[in-house]
Amino acid sequence: MIPSVTIDGCQYCNWSEDIFRQLREGRVDAILVTICYHEDFRETVENLIDWNGMLERHGDVIMPGFTAADIDAARASNRTAVFFALQNCSAIEDDIGLVAILHRLGIRVMQITYNNQSLLGAGCYEAVDTGITRMGREVIAEMNRVGLVIDLSHSGERTCREAIDLSARPVAITHANPSWWHPVARNKSDEVLIPLAKRGGMLGLSLYPHHLAGGSACTLESFTAMVAELVGRIGVDHVGIGSDLCQGQPDSVVAWMRNGRWTKGETNIGLGKATFPPQPSWFRDNRDFPGIRDGLAARGFSPAEVEKLMGGNWYRFFRANFGPVAAAGGKA
Amino acid sequence: MIPSVTIDGCQYCNWSEDIFRQLREGRVDAILVTICYHEDFRETVENLIDWNGMLERHGDVIMPGFTAADIDAARASNRTAVFFALQNCSAIEDDIGLVAILHRLGIRVMQITYNNQSLLGAGCYEAVDTGITRMGREVIAEMNRVGLVIDLSHSGERTCREAIDLSARPVAITHANPSWWHPVARNKSDEVLIPLAKRGGMLGLSLYPHHLAGGSACTLESFTAMVAELVGRIGVDHVGIGSDLCQGQPDSVVAWMRNGRWTKGETNIGLGKATFPPQPSWFRDNRDFPGIRDGLAARGFSPAEVEKLMGGNWYRFFRANFGPVAAAGGKA
Repeated sequence: MIPSVTIDGCQYCNWSEDIFRQLREGRVDAILVTICYHEDFRETVENLIDWNGMLERHGDVIMPGFTAADIDAARASNRTAVFFALQNCSAIEDDIGLVAILHRLGIRVMQITYNNQSLLGAGCYEAVDTGITRMGREVIAEMNRVGLVIDLSHSGERTCREAIDLSARPVAITHANPSWWHPVARNKSDEVLIPLAKRGGMLGLSLYPHHLAGGSACTLESFTAMVAELVGRIGVDHVGIGSDLCQGQPDSVVAWMRNGRWTKGETNIGLGKATFPPQPSWFRDNRDFPGIRDGLAARGFSPAEVEKLMGGNWYRFFRANFGPVAAAGGKA
Repeated sequence: MIPSVTIDGCQYCNWSEDIFRQLREGRVDAILVTICYHEDFRETVENLIDWNGMLERHGDVIMPGFTAADIDAARASNRTAVFFALQNCSAIEDDIGLVAILHRLGIRVMQITYNNQSLLGAGCYEAVDTGITRMGREVIAEMNRVGLVIDLSHSGERTCREAIDLSARPVAITHANPSWWHPVARNKSDEVLIPLAKRGGMLGLSLYPHHLAGGSACTLESFTAMVAELVGRIGVDHVGIGSDLCQGQPDSVVAWMRNGRWTKGETNIGLGKATFPPQPSWFRDNRDFPGIRDGLAARGFSPAEVEKLMGGNWYRFFRANFGPVAAAGGKA
């Protein structure tokens, strides 16, 4: 039994009490929040410590999420369950033992690459995509064992396809869109999306302007038309939202995302200066989730389909994949 | 309802399948194992990773312990529950946020000093005992909040007394003996033991030869006579075993314990060269726990008292203190 839920598969806001209260206004039951872009293990732990402080101070509106059951607990207490995700494998350094450590600390999703080549595979902006490396195969098996979900949002095409094949459990692309709708390096081709869905995986649709056809001017109608086409291609059970909302962040954060510490200059990924683009008018912050729900209904999705797209699919995926196979109740 | 259990409050063996099987032969249901003497946070995590590997490889005889309920699960599956403890506060570095992180990773007991002055207080070999420091007060409150037990085994007298007073929850001395039985710096006076017990704390009796009257030649009869006298002074509900068993360790480990990285030479604590003394004939390894049980019965303790001393008291203490007050079921 999947409850009626709203779940966002990717956010990285400049967190504050205001934003937590907006999550409640938008009736968002659970979010996956990024806590690492380029940080090493110790720095990622410090980010966790910052989150522990927020969870302690704002326990009236947010609570930590470890399993799908915590989403039920959050709903029952009118709060939002916060699940932790890493956008990079930098936090495991060169140490496979850190996979289980980070899972125990509450990390539930980890990207195996972020734009660049990593120890595990290749990012979507590399000229050569190596596919999954020797260490990558080991780490995928370990992530499968402990129930840490593989995220391919910023991976290259070959790396995506190989990871989907190699993983014994379903994987996620938490925040991206189909490249046939908006052809940029970060969006994904059917050669990735169809096997992703066939193997039980999830695509979280991004609302970040650089991933939208028309950018900041993208309309809700264009977005929901894309969802209808996508559902026709990969089915209604493998699609959710992964807004990539970066509300209230200064532009220095885009620069950190893009440049990390790996360049002394500014990397050029064809998107101009490192600034946050304006959000589309129909998704400025978490209060706008009900509008997306309405937009999907207006597009002609049935109530049951709207529930799946807005969070039911993520709920089922979390339940099946956050933890060891036995504890998580089997494969999705 | 406290089950009939055998629990050891402190071990640091050179772990192997043989030793894990000896735990089963001795019917030891739970052990607190040391995973840090001088290690910083990252090194302690690496020690946890080593333990994760052992727990995965030897899951037929050992299992991780997080709460007292895991002792029941271990008994039901004929295994020993392994709980993690730190003999020093070096693992939290200067970062109070690491208290909750380490608790989440499974650490259930932490010494606030190990022989020397620390950021939190003074060790038992310092000339001047500062008592609890400014950071020490903060960390004690945080340990109380998350349910990480304060261990005073290697702390100085004033630091012990102040920690017992300052802590809102019962504290432990996991491995030491009364100094009136064997007057060495590591053993504890009644000025520590009586308030410890009055506030619901626990003393784990050490079987390490340097802490025994007569050293390696100490007899089981001398030991049980001391237990009878101690129970007369502090009651039968606050005493357990904390053997400090260091089976199979090379002498380089004693040198690491004593010298860490804080001296270039060898510290003199009045115990001669850094070597492990021979164990007493009646406690060579984990297979000898039933003999201690028999010795306590022979001393005249009732069956119910023997159960308390062999593990029932630790079980009750674990249940009350491993986790936040609400989750742990209230104060002991």
